[in-house]
This record gives sequence, structure tokens and C-alpha cells, in this order.
Amino acid sequence: MAFELQRPHVAVACLLVMHYLAGVLSIPDPRKREALIQQEASMQTGGQVVLSDAEQRLDSLLFKMKQREVLGAEFPPALHFFKARDLIRTSPIFSLLQKMPKGGALHVHDFSMTDPEWLVKNATYRPHCYMCFTDKHSIRFIFSPQWPEPLPRCSDWNLLENLRAKTINTTELDDSILRNLTIFTDQDPETAYPSQDVVWDVFEQSFYALWGLVTYAPVFRDYYYQGLTEFYMDNVMYLELRALLPEIYELDGSTHDAAWTLKTYQDVTRQFTDDHPDFYGARIIFTIHRGVNISRMNGVVETAMKLQKDFPDIMAGFDLVGREDLGRPLWYFREALSLPTDRGVTLPFFFHAGETDLEGTEVDQNLLDALLFNTSRIGHGFALPRHPVAKEISRNRGVAVEVCPISNQVMMLVKDLRNHPAAALMSENHPVVISSDDPGMFGASGLSYDFYEAFVGFGGLRSHLGSLKQLAINSIRYSSLTPNQQEKALDLWQRKWDKFVSENSF
Amino acid sequence: MAFELQRPHVAVACLLVMHYLAGVLSIPDPRKREALIQQEASMQTGGQVVLSDAEQRLDSLLFKMKQREVLGAEFPPALHFFKARDLIRTSPIFSLLQKMPKGGALHVHDFSMTDPEWLVKNATYRPHCYMCFTDKHSIRFIFSPQWPEPLPRCSDWNLLENLRAKTINTTELDDSILRNLTIFTDQDPETAYPSQDVVWDVFEQSFYALWGLVTYAPVFRDYYYQGLTEFYMDNVMYLELRALLPEIYELDGSTHDAAWTLKTYQDVTRQFTDDHPDFYGARIIFTIHRGVNISRMNGVVETAMKLQKDFPDIMAGFDLVGREDLGRPLWYFREALSLPTDRGVTLPFFFHAGETDLEGTEVDQNLLDALLFNTSRIGHGFALPRHPVAKEISRNRGVAVEVCPISNQVMMLVKDLRNHPAAALMSENHPVVISSDDPGMFGASGLSYDFYEAFVGFGGLRSHLGSLKQLAINSIRYSSLTPNQQEKALDLWQRKWDKFVSENSF
Repeated sequence: MAFELQRPHVAVACLLVMHYLAGVLSIPDPRKREALIQQEASMQTGGQVVLSDAEQRLDSLLFKMKQREVLGAEFPPALHFFKARDLIRTSPIFSLLQKMPKGGALHVHDFSMTDPEWLVKNATYRPHCYMCFTDKHSIRFIFSPQWPEPLPRCSDWNLLENLRAKTINTTELDDSILRNLTIFTDQDPETAYPSQDVVWDVFEQSFYALWGLVTYAPVFRDYYYQGLTEFYMDNVMYLELRALLPEIYELDGSTHDAAWTLKTYQDVTRQFTDDHPDFYGARIIFTIHRGVNISRMNGVVETAMKLQKDFPDIMAGFDLVGREDLGRPLWYFREALSLPTDRGVTLPFFFHAGETDLEGTEVDQNLLDALLFNTSRIGHGFALPRHPVAKEISRNRGVAVEVCPISNQVMMLVKDLRNHPAAALMSENHPVVISSDDPGMFGASGLSYDFYEAFVGFGGLRSHLGSLKQLAINSIRYSSLTPNQQEKALDLWQRKWDKFVSENSF
Repeated sequence: MAFELQRPHVAVACLLVMHYLAGVLSIPDPRKREALIQQEASMQTGGQVVLSDAEQRLDSLLFKMKQREVLGAEFPPALHFFKARDLIRTSPIFSLLQKMPKGGALHVHDFSMTDPEWLVKNATYRPHCYMCFTDKHSIRFIFSPQWPEPLPRCSDWNLLENLRAKTINTTELDDSILRNLTIFTDQDPETAYPSQDVVWDVFEQSFYALWGLVTYAPVFRDYYYQGLTEFYMDNVMYLELRALLPEIYELDGSTHDAAWTLKTYQDVTRQFTDDHPDFYGARIIFTIHRGVNISRMNGVVETAMKLQKDFPDIMAGFDLVGREDLGRPLWYFREALSLPTDRGVTLPFFFHAGETDLEGTEVDQNLLDALLFNTSRIGHGFALPRHPVAKEISRNRGVAVEVCPISNQVMMLVKDLRNHPAAALMSENHPVVISSDDPGMFGASGLSYDFYEAFVGFGGLRSHLGSLKQLAINSIRYSSLTPNQQEKALDLWQRKWDKFVSENSF
């Protein structure tokens, strides 16, 4: 059956199983048992990766580290990330994962890619920065040459320079600003965020809070450069960034359009790769909030097609963002989303889908619809194991699921990451990549925290260095890069990988 | 491929998917989309059940109820059962499920089948009942004609009759006894039980607390009769009870062996079916704690084979109980477990396996080993989706997974029941039955609470009356009853079902 032939390892497993079923055994034959155990192990992500001697030594080391981690009083993947973060930071596995070349991060959002502390310590200390306090206990910023017009439902503007001059404890002021730019909290997260509605609300408020900072042209450029630096320092060599391409403003109030913003991403990326020749680059997935109406969506898809044509190097494609549960389903926008095909224009889609636990609702059809619209990857795909038809299409077409463990936990889809549905997906080598979604918002950074959760939490003692290697390779193979670019990126990654292995296997 | 032919609905789905993949569509064809949605819906448990007109009316009613339930401020399956119980009790879906003929409960343990309040209000009020307080803040009981010898690490014995006479508020005393016989608590469950270790410890202490009550011969008989009554009142018509068959004592201190206990189960079951002719019956799965050593296990398997031969009507088979994570894995007992096959003796196995989140450890091989030992069903199978080879064997052989949602939540394997792995299993009609494990211990009773969690939590809006019907039929088809008995039981069930549908479809 052609359908099975695309999964050679599954077919082999089936033959073994059939073989086993055929014989009636009196006592289970230890060799057959071992063969079935090995077969299952080989079916997982990276299960067929052949390790060199040096890799095997590193793998043994990793296995010992994991055994110790499992035996610890508190198992970090079982805890909320806000509580687990300090534990993870002391983990030797985490140190190793930080050093490990992880390939690309394919699901990261524009204004949460960078540590918000950089915004506080850098952006808010720039001249002409004003701040006001909203009646929803959030803050707003603007850069302006003169005192800005008041915002509705916000206090009078305060020039931060003045506010800091009047404040005795500026550290406290800075800390309180920081708390408004992230959902990370030292409080008990379950008390602070009793429901998905609450955590999404705070998430959105934090997003609005940093908006006036990051859309200010000089900050915008530096924020992105700083974000690239953080991923680079975390040994990520390539990025696909979901970006809203909003109006960016200058101090005089003049604004730039989406094309300018995209070109700025291109320029800053080039600058960064010039400064760091072993960083492969970045591409942009243009995104729009799924709350817009149909005519707006038509217009945005038109813009996306034009940008795709004008900036083919930097522009990877198009996606919808915002909470799926409250937004409009993909099918609602079916006409707008069909425009590119109707015109014979290429606009790759990278749809968020299945970031929900509302089973059986309209929103829950996004997974199937994303695939019907030929999405190149699936953002999150948390609900995929409950959709066997969508799952088979995703597998057969090689439509990778972008798994963001910490995001799904913090946004309250799953508590104990051992129960994350990607654990089952990875046990059968479903196409997946690991990403970090909004690290700046979650108190994380780069990609290593999410790799830790996936490696230790999803895989338990079963996943190994081969799994990590496969995940890194997947992140290039399932990227939007052309086959030639992928080969080049893989060469670069392989050199980094070999160096990493030789430096860490004893 | 023979392997696929056993799953006709999957094969059909594959053809549809292949068909879809073959054509390159410009705009997704709404009819094809609808066909894929329907295909997916038909793959779930009960997805191919054809409903009569009356059933369709009841199904519409159920769907409306579910929509309201999903829209509620608090969604019970997302909450800990201890917090959700009051909400569930007011749910019209729950009322309907209580009335619904659910078939059999195939995974219930002997000394937690009955509401512990019955023990307090009935057993502890019998004459000669003594209680002491352990230094671990638990209690112990014994019935004795004279003052019993003190227990190690327990206070002096108190005759309950005396204690109650001295106590002003006996309600308070009874409540405090009750709290020791269950892990249910009005406190915040996450504060009361911060870890799996703590909740298992309290579980075991509660079990020891009721031991002296339920192993007293007169109470033993009545406790079992009362348990049957509770399941019968909850519209369960058949039970497979995992029973330790421990020494049962009389007031004079004399004791009975396992054969006597099994025969007593048989006698009381007959008495109950005589009193309630529309109750089909019960069978016993003899169990032993997985903490025993190899020579003890050999002896117990010998006993099990003898009991199976002497009591073929009541005895269904054999299983190991106790926390998998701390006990010995099945493979450790491989020689003892091979004895029946070696001797050409039939001893069906009903192994607990995969009630764990320790992935990749020895314990995690129990699933595969249970299948290698030809288990008839899998108890819990929580880890099954992470074991693709074991999952395929279970599917192809029709080895049903006994899913106990509330147990898995309360014993802290999963928090939000929408994330229970059985949701994915049911989305592809994997052989499953729903059961309640230890309802008396969890503040539940009978089977309806677990049916509620499975129907509303796993299925979301997608599961329907067909799913419920299939689950009820599964509970008979995957029982240990002979094919002839199954037909008889199904006839009985069908009559009850038709009555239920006609009384509840408007």
C-alpha cells in the first residue's frame, strides 16, 4: 500500500509485529522481546541516527545525566516553567544543550524574541521616552520630541527621564516596568493565572505595553539585532520570524509601511550575518491577527503577495496569529486565503493550527483546513493526535509540527510536559521541530529551554543524542530554505556539531 | 497488507487521503473538506454506530447540553475531580449518564468499590469494633470478642461503642473516621497532595485503615453486596473485580483462605443476581501486590491456577497491583508468569501496565511485556500512545485498554482530562473500556463520573450518543465472558438501552 511505503520504519515494525503475532509463544523469547523494544526505540525521532564513537561517548554521558535528573526530588518538566527555570539553569543537561548547535528556530514571534530586560535597560533609557499607566494596570510607551497627546484610558504621560530623576529607587521602577513587559512572575503561577482567559489577557496587555517601544524605528532595528544576538549566543544559526510588519514610527511622528519594515529586517539580518559569518540568516513569515474582518484579510493577503514577490529572499510566507479559541477559524477566510492560488502566485502558508483544547468546535477544524490550504508547516498542532486524518496528511506530506513546549504549558494547554502530545508524535518520528514561540514573554530565551523540556520531558530516558541531532537536522530540512540553501546550512551546522561533539565527549 | 485490513475504517480514510493528495486543488472543495471531516468523525469510538430516530433525538439533546457545558465558566473535566464533583452533580449530562445502561465495569478493585460512608455508618457501628490511632496519623480497626493485643506503632485499642458513648459530637467522630478511609478532601487537592509520592502514600494508608473492617467476614460479605448495589443503582449490569482474596477473619480469630473468599464472592454474587435478575453478574480477577518476591509470586501463580480450575465460573484471571513505578516490572516475574503456559493450563492475565510517566525505564516496558504474556486487557495503559509497537499489537489483537480517567487525574498522572491520552485513542477507535478503578477512594461511586469525564472531557463536542453506545458495548465485548454469555449480556443490555432511549428522547 503506497500509503505505508512512505513510512519504511513503520512498515518494518508491522512486519515484526505480524511475525510475532504469527507464532504462539510459551515463554516470551528474550531475543524477540529485545527486538520489539529495539524496534520501538528505532521508530522514535532520531531512532535511526547512527552515532559515531565520539557521539556515543557523549550519549553515554547524557544518559547518566538524565538518570540523575529523573531521580531528583523535583523533575523540572513536571513543574510549571516559572518554577522550573532555576532548576533547569543548574542542570548539566541544560548547559550542554546551550552549547549544542540546535539549527534553526522556526516558530518565534517578532516582539517577544528578545529579553524584555534589554527593553528596560536600553530602550526606556533613550531620550524622549514617555510612559503612561492604563486603567487596566498596564503601561504604554511613546517616543516623542514634545509632550504627547494623552491616550484614552491612560494617565498623563511621564517623561521617563524626569520620572527616574524623581525616583529614589530606580531599580524598583525598572523592575516594575519589566514586570509589565512579560508574563513571567515569581508568584505562584497557578494563583496568578487561574485560567487560560486570564493568562491570555495578561499576555496581550504585556504585548500592548511593549508596542510603543519596539515600533519606534531606532529601537525596532536594535531590538531585532539584539534578538538575533540572543539566539546566536544560544547556538541557534537560523531563524524564521513571524512578524506583524506594523507601522514603524520615527521621532517626528512620520511612519513607515510594511515594505520598509520587511526591508529593515533584511538589512539588519545582513548586518548581523556580516558581523557573525557563522550565523546562517533569518527569514520572515508575515502575520496578521485572526481577529480582522474579511475585507481587511483580502487586503493583507494582497500585501503579502506583493511582499513575497518584491522580497523573495527574506520573505518566507504568511500566517495568522492571536488566540485561536477567540479568533476566526481559517475556513472563515477561505476566499482570501485562496487568492494566491487563484492568481497563480506563490505565497507559502505557515499556519498556526490546533493550539486549542476545544475539541469538536469550528476552531478545532483549523488543523485540517491548514492542510487543505497546503500549509508548509503547522504552528503548535497541539490537538493533532486527536485528528487522525489530519495527522496522516501531515505525516505523509512531511508537514512538520512546530512544537513549543514552554508556550503550551505557560498558556495553560498542558501542565506536566510529559503529557505533551508531542511526546507521542516523537515516539513515532512524526515530522516535528522544536521552537520557543515567545521566549521574551515567558522568561525564557533562545531555544535551549524548550529543547530541554522536549529532550528530558517528552523523551524521558528513551530519547538520546540521536534524537537531538534529528531535531536539529529537522529544523533545517523543514525550514523554508531552498534545497540548495538547506545543503549549505546543513554543512555549516555539521561543522558546528562535530566541534561540539569533540569538545564535549570524553 | 493484512495488517491494515483489520482496520477497515482506517483503510478507507487512507484511500480518501490518497485521493485527496493525488489532486492539486486550487480552492479546497467544500465537499471534499466535509468528506474528510466526516471521515475523521467516523474513525472515532462509536463513529460508525448507526442511530435510530429516537437515538438521534436523544443525541441532539445531548449535543445541546454539551454546548452549554463547554460555555460554562468552569469546565469540569479541566478541574481536579475533587473540585469538579459538585459541578458534575448538577450537570444534566451527568443525570442522563447515571440513567444510561453502561454495561460492565471491568477495572474496579475489591476494597474501594463501595462508598466508605457505608463502612462508617454500618461496619463501625457493629459490636466488637475496635480502633487505634497510628503514629502516621492514620487509623486501624479490628473486630474482637475481647480487648485485642496492641498493634506496633498504634495507640491502645478503643472500643468504638465506648468511644462514641464518651464523645459529645459523634458526627464529628464519624466524619474524621471517614476522612481516613478515602483520599477525597475538601481542601485544595494540589496543596493536600503536592506530589505522586504523597498521594500514593495517603492512598495506601487509607487502604490499611479500612483493611480491618473489610476483611472481617460478616462485613466482607455485606461490603461486597453493598458495592454491587451501588454499581447496580448506577446502571452497571456487570462487574469484573480485581480482588486480593486475602485472609478473612471471624470474630473468634479463625481465618479463611483464598478459596473460601472466592467462593464467598460467588455466593454473594448469586444472592445479588437472585435479588436483582436484571443484573448480569460479576467475575473476579485474582490480584497480588507487585512488591512480593519471586518465590512468593511462584506460589501465588500456583494458587491462581488452582482457583481458576476450581472456580471457572467466577474466576476470570490474574493480575498484579500496586504502584507500578515502585513495584517490580512484569519481566522480573517472567518465570512465574510463564508457569500456566508451561503446564498447558489456562490462566488469563489482565495486567495493569503503563500507569506511569517514567518513560524509558524498566517499568515502562510493562506494556510490551503484558502483551508478550498475552494479556487479555491492559489496565490503564496511560503510556500506550508513547509505545507505537505496543499500541499496534493492542489494536490488532483487540486487547482493550481499561481507561480510568478520574483515577489517573487524582493519582496525578494528568491534570486536565482533555489531555488524557485516551482522547487520542478514542479518536481512532482504539479498543477501550471506561472504568472507575477505586471509586470509594476517590469520592466517586459506580461508573457515571468516569463516563462523564470520558464523554465530555476526552470527546469534547465531537463524541456523541454513538460513542456512549460503543463504550457500553465494548464493556461486554472485551469482558472475560464467553461468546455465548456475551450475547446473553448484550441482549439484556439492549433491552435496557432501548428503554433508556425511549424514556429520554423527546
